[in-house]
Amino acid sequence: MKAFVMIEARKVGWIEKEKPKCGPLDAICKPIAIAPCTSDVHTVWEGALGDRYNLTLGHECVAQIVEVGSLVKEFKIGDRVIVPAITPDWNSLASQAGFSMHSGGMLLGCKFSNIKDGVFAEFFHVNDADGNLALLPEGLDLASAVMLSDMVSTGFHGAELADIQFGDRVAVIGIGPVGLMSVVGATLKGAAEIYAVGSRPKCIQIAKEYGATHIINYKDGDIVKQILDITNGKKVDKVIIAGGDVDTFDQAVNMLKAGGIIGNVNYLGSGDYIKIPRVAWGVGMGHKTIAGGLMPGGRLRMEKLALMLHNKRIDTSKLITHKFNGFDKIEEALLLMRDKPQDLIKPVVIL
Amino acid sequence: MKAFVMIEARKVGWIEKEKPKCGPLDAICKPIAIAPCTSDVHTVWEGALGDRYNLTLGHECVAQIVEVGSLVKEFKIGDRVIVPAITPDWNSLASQAGFSMHSGGMLLGCKFSNIKDGVFAEFFHVNDADGNLALLPEGLDLASAVMLSDMVSTGFHGAELADIQFGDRVAVIGIGPVGLMSVVGATLKGAAEIYAVGSRPKCIQIAKEYGATHIINYKDGDIVKQILDITNGKKVDKVIIAGGDVDTFDQAVNMLKAGGIIGNVNYLGSGDYIKIPRVAWGVGMGHKTIAGGLMPGGRLRMEKLALMLHNKRIDTSKLITHKFNGFDKIEEALLLMRDKPQDLIKPVVIL
Amino acid sequence: MKAFVMIEARKVGWIEKEKPKCGPLDAICKPIAIAPCTSDVHTVWEGALGDRYNLTLGHECVAQIVEVGSLVKEFKIGDRVIVPAITPDWNSLASQAGFSMHSGGMLLGCKFSNIKDGVFAEFFHVNDADGNLALLPEGLDLASAVMLSDMVSTGFHGAELADIQFGDRVAVIGIGPVGLMSVVGATLKGAAEIYAVGSRPKCIQIAKEYGATHIINYKDGDIVKQILDITNGKKVDKVIIAGGDVDTFDQAVNMLKAGGIIGNVNYLGSGDYIKIPRVAWGVGMGHKTIAGGLMPGGRLRMEKLALMLHNKRIDTSKLITHKFNGFDKIEEALLLMRDKPQDLIKPVVIL
Amino acid sequence: MKAFVMIEARKVGWIEKEKPKCGPLDAICKPIAIAPCTSDVHTVWEGALGDRYNLTLGHECVAQIVEVGSLVKEFKIGDRVIVPAITPDWNSLASQAGFSMHSGGMLLGCKFSNIKDGVFAEFFHVNDADGNLALLPEGLDLASAVMLSDMVSTGFHGAELADIQFGDRVAVIGIGPVGLMSVVGATLKGAAEIYAVGSRPKCIQIAKEYGATHIINYKDGDIVKQILDITNGKKVDKVIIAGGDVDTFDQAVNMLKAGGIIGNVNYLGSGDYIKIPRVAWGVGMGHKTIAGGLMPGGRLRMEKLALMLHNKRIDTSKLITHKFNGFDKIEEALLLMRDKPQDLIKPVVIL
Repeated sequence: MKAFVMIEARKVGWIEKEKPKCGPLDAICKPIAIAPCTSDVHTVWEGALGDRYNLTLGHECVAQIVEVGSLVKEFKIGDRVIVPAITPDWNSLASQAGFSMHSGGMLLGCKFSNIKDGVFAEFFHVNDADGNLALLPEGLDLASAVMLSDMVSTGFHGAELADIQFGDRVAVIGIGPVGLMSVVGATLKGAAEIYAVGSRPKCIQIAKEYGATHIINYKDGDIVKQILDITNGKKVDKVIIAGGDVDTFDQAVNMLKAGGIIGNVNYLGSGDYIKIPRVAWGVGMGHKTIAGGLMPGGRLRMEKLALMLHNKRIDTSKLITHKFNGFDKIEEALLLMRDKPQDLIKPVVIL
Repeated sequence: MKAFVMIEARKVGWIEKEKPKCGPLDAICKPIAIAPCTSDVHTVWEGALGDRYNLTLGHECVAQIVEVGSLVKEFKIGDRVIVPAITPDWNSLASQAGFSMHSGGMLLGCKFSNIKDGVFAEFFHVNDADGNLALLPEGLDLASAVMLSDMVSTGFHGAELADIQFGDRVAVIGIGPVGLMSVVGATLKGAAEIYAVGSRPKCIQIAKEYGATHIINYKDGDIVKQILDITNGKKVDKVIIAGGDVDTFDQAVNMLKAGGIIGNVNYLGSGDYIKIPRVAWGVGMGHKTIAGGLMPGGRLRMEKLALMLHNKRIDTSKLITHKFNGFDKIEEALLLMRDKPQDLIKPVVIL
Repeated sequence: MKAFVMIEARKVGWIEKEKPKCGPLDAICKPIAIAPCTSDVHTVWEGALGDRYNLTLGHECVAQIVEVGSLVKEFKIGDRVIVPAITPDWNSLASQAGFSMHSGGMLLGCKFSNIKDGVFAEFFHVNDADGNLALLPEGLDLASAVMLSDMVSTGFHGAELADIQFGDRVAVIGIGPVGLMSVVGATLKGAAEIYAVGSRPKCIQIAKEYGATHIINYKDGDIVKQILDITNGKKVDKVIIAGGDVDTFDQAVNMLKAGGIIGNVNYLGSGDYIKIPRVAWGVGMGHKTIAGGLMPGGRLRMEKLALMLHNKRIDTSKLITHKFNGFDKIEEALLLMRDKPQDLIKPVVIL
Repeated sequence: MKAFVMIEARKVGWIEKEKPKCGPLDAICKPIAIAPCTSDVHTVWEGALGDRYNLTLGHECVAQIVEVGSLVKEFKIGDRVIVPAITPDWNSLASQAGFSMHSGGMLLGCKFSNIKDGVFAEFFHVNDADGNLALLPEGLDLASAVMLSDMVSTGFHGAELADIQFGDRVAVIGIGPVGLMSVVGATLKGAAEIYAVGSRPKCIQIAKEYGATHIINYKDGDIVKQILDITNGKKVDKVIIAGGDVDTFDQAVNMLKAGGIIGNVNYLGSGDYIKIPRVAWGVGMGHKTIAGGLMPGGRLRMEKLALMLHNKRIDTSKLITHKFNGFDKIEEALLLMRDKPQDLIKPVVIL
């Protein structure tokens, strides 16, 4: 079969691979709509996972089942399914402790394009089909549904980690597709006021449509100062970090109230240390909690998010600025994601 | 001064009362917009508080401050404020434990028209002004703002008690003004699907506008069966009870999944026991948690809800079906609340 | 193989059964120490599960593995293991939602002697060995270890459900073996004062050794009144129910503060409704949360409890009042559990 | 009256001060037992609060009331009380949000020897007596009771922040008096195994008596490596930081499981940034939550801890290695705290 792979660092292309084998609990699927992710860019061009050779890329996908293992009870050949980016081993100790995304080791619930081949291929393998796939509800737009695999689950997890409550003032730092979904997530958890930190016009426009009440643009000056000005020095109740780097935490802590929470869902690619400013962190005692975590995956998560999409609680179509058709467009879509033109939020490829 | 009181059981009217005195931490206010509440009806016509004589009614109000105590720091004469129905003693043990609504004893954070005179008078007294009043944001519609005192805080508390999560299926039993605010609250906490249980056409219409995806009308048959049918037997993740009586819990437990939560904000006026069905409750072990509580009051709560209203996260104007002008209309508004004509949700009187 | 079964209602005995088959994820074990449980008594003599025929009894056990499925990674033949009473399907939706004990339906994480044969047999079957078994630490007393399967996990779950905090006043109603473990659990969560409600001298003695500060004996008068007297009317912060019936909740609500929690781990065998007293429950608004749930099972739970036993954080040996040797003593031990002589807490049979 | 003050940086002594005035909600107390704290050392010799002149030191105290304000209801002259180090303004927005220790601004619930004079004087002032004092139970040892003001509440808060659960493996870094109380707190929340990190023999001995199962001494090599070795690479579930500096977080994150929590109660006196290692923190996504906070103060907290002491749930007497009598010994006790001789844990002065 054909697979679109990272041939080696900074080099991608199509190669021929063997079709994956289906264990008794597994499913083999063929993708019907996919999206490239900034994580794929990190993997190929920024060495996020270290050296890899001929690793199939991709982890955002809606697919059709072509084979199921003998012990699979809930799915059958032909079913159209949402495939989450994170596919845990549900009986692991980490899952039993409530952290299925770390089953088998920290971050190892993330299997696609990490510890096994990803979804940008004619066929791909899903571990524990019953535990990790969700039926695609009838009538859902394919491109919108692909956003559930990672963008919605990750963006919403920012709002979950920050534990948004009714009436909170919330800063969302970074308004790429994940940050935009954090804006939606914060709105849908009852935030009163959302300060979206970003600068690209397309993202700003969608952030406002998604519920941001204020836009904070670093081009207009220090973002902490801007937020302190708007809040009359009261600072924010919660911060969601969906962009930036290790220095972003310095800003986040400085704009946050005592008793507040920072929820990070951003991949941090470089730097030895996350910078938590000692004094603004209350010399250790300010109750400014710092949380950060990989999105929850698996079947229940996908079913719940799909029901939200089905009932129009969320509109992911606004994220999709570029739509392609056909396998051969995967590379173009991925390069768009790497080059991030002004008008891009997220490309999708329908297969 | 004039006050609209419960003269005795089942009898209301205007009497002359002494103007309240202002202690060092207190404020004296005059109402500028008020709303009668079903609780006032319970008090007068259903003996909810037992016998009372010449007790001033009312606890939903926007007001102007006319006097402040010597130790009040945050407010001054002339300030326009939102007055919460619940005005706790913030240094009490109950408040320190996180249950300020029970400061001084169960339910005793509720002082207006309970342990002291209410707000339907020329002037009324607010304990701990700094802790319990919130500035009315500029430009807020008065009638909409009065809904914050009780309707929004109580309705939202149903969603808080039920701990709604992204993608939950939620039943809201009862869609009077509080239940409608529970529909908003559930929507704003990320419910995917909301089954609103009610029958009055006006309430049904607003429930849909507020986010209900399904209407469950008892006239169409057993409500538990209807919900089981819609969910293919999966039942709901959470139930908010905002209407009904002690038997309603029987239905709520039967429509709820193992691991679910019932959040009650409904006043239960009669019956010796709340009925929790033994078998459906998992013979004691089904993890169907039953929570019920009085709304949180105080300054922070009001400020947070006011910011939501200011930023149009919530639109309380849909609740207000009847609007009056002038003190003398308080009685008419209260009788409307008692008689509940088909087209009524909530009346407001602007003073 | 031989199995000790419920032949039919109210009749037990040994029969010959086929040795269970091992699926790819499963293990076949032979018990090396077992304990009968009051649940076994409920099953046989009180119709707790309805009619059953030739159902092998028993769910408390330490065992040795004699066969493992082809996909089992963590265990091998000969391993000595702790077997939890609850053995969930870890990839089920209920487990993903955090309620593995209800995987497959309410209470259906409880498989032994319920939806399949129990452990009182020469061999028994364990689903998902990797997810549900825990290695028995070296040097642990077998009889003490058997208490982990159910008594410790269930008793501790009472303290978890009631969410005991430092300095809480806690009532534990019922001081059979589960209630005694709730006393330990409450102590180990920082309760300041524990009111143990019971009357059997042996249980009273052990309750005191386990951390009860006061004994409340119903023979000395109304238990609610006794607790109100001791606390000067302040009532308790939390109640754990580990005995009694549907009426016990009436007492529990009456002795509980506003803002308190009731955690039930008691099987409720009869009565149509759990009785929650309307007025004492704050007419629906007293924030007296009622929680009740089956114990968590699975590997992680057993490993954590075993580590506590290993490090002498808990001493389960006090529970074991009667010790037998040999398979043929299972019936005698079970009948003891049924007849509950004065000096009995828990019998164990070493095989 | 006489007061023992920080005359200026690095200089302490007795001066004459005016007796404090009692507002309507306040109390004036005279200390009957006090203890110096490492915080006093930070204030005087490490510039923790910046320059201060003639500031009365001290915040750990048991006292007798000599004057109460006109609005105080719960206390009277002559009452013996426990005085918490943190005395919040209970009606503040921060308190209403659950963070009373930050009432009036981050850390400003800490008033003694910070924003007003401390307790090392003939008389001192307590704001909101009803909200902040707790009656000293009859028969409590004075020296043991002084430990409640700060040591117990702070140490236990470490266990609360880290959210210790039954069976957790917990590292406690730093075993001075606060860290030792964190060992007790972790034990009393059900930790299975506690790795106490420290080197002073006296502290090691008490740590073991308080529940530490392993001692990790930095003199024996890298502490992270030692903990990884003991746990067979599994790492710990939770870390409590009660000593060290900004670099300690680097170690804490490295010894912590994905899904774990760090609870810091240590004052961090220098360094620009807390060091959170990027890779060990899961490149932002490892769900290793970092919490840190000032102890809860006020009346309820002190009452609850006092009840634990009264019922012998905790034994603070082990902390008290040096006992003095008389006002004039305060300086000697403070200098001991500064110089930390080998055999010191905590000195107390009975007045």
